[in-house]
Amino acid sequence: MVQYSTGLDTTFAALSERTRRGVLERLGRGDASISDLAARYRMTLTGMKKHVRILEDAGLVTTRKVGRVRRCRLGPRRLEDETAWIAQYRRMLEARLDRLGEFLARTKEG
Amino acid sequence: MVQYSTGLDTTFAALSERTRRGVLERLGRGDASISDLAARYRMTLTGMKKHVRILEDAGLVTTRKVGRVRRCRLGPRRLEDETAWIAQYRRMLEARLDRLGEFLARTKEG
Repeated sequence: MVQYSTGLDTTFAALSERTRRGVLERLGRGDASISDLAARYRMTLTGMKKHVRILEDAGLVTTRKVGRVRRCRLGPRRLEDETAWIAQYRRMLEARLDRLGEFLARTKEG
Repeated sequence: MVQYSTGLDTTFAALSERTRRGVLERLGRGDASISDLAARYRMTLTGMKKHVRILEDAGLVTTRKVGRVRRCRLGPRRLEDETAWIAQYRRMLEARLDRLGEFLARTKEG
């Protein structure tokens, strides 16, 4: 399988936390400031900044300063590599299960 | 979006490491012992056991003792929830980008 390793490491790690997935879902409905996000998750600004930084490092969120406020927006990554990896994994798993099924069927007949 | 949070936390964390994704790909071609996997990744048995344990806790690998050897096999989880989450996220992102595009087009016209 093709390895997009560093990218996949970073993105899957970014996605492995419920709050961060929630932030992505929230940003899907519109841009938000870090303080909006902190308030929504009843979290300190510092705590939310850490989550946003992880999402930013993974390319899932971009931020820009507007006056004194830091606005967050989705993108630029679209999880294409992650989708491809998981899809390829699932095809491989199905093929493996089919082979096991055939083996068991042959064993039963034999 | 539906939250399968604990499951998704555990699986995405399990997938966020290159060696563990490699182990899953290797097991897609057939079962293997922990020492086979350790040799393949030039890793100590202890190091590989930790990776396998994380994959096992995420439901991505099952292990069984055959004599003195611990054999690893894929399953039972098929990454269905992970696929669903990412697909839903991508649809949301596309919709968001479409709305931004329309907004920019209107701004340009206006």
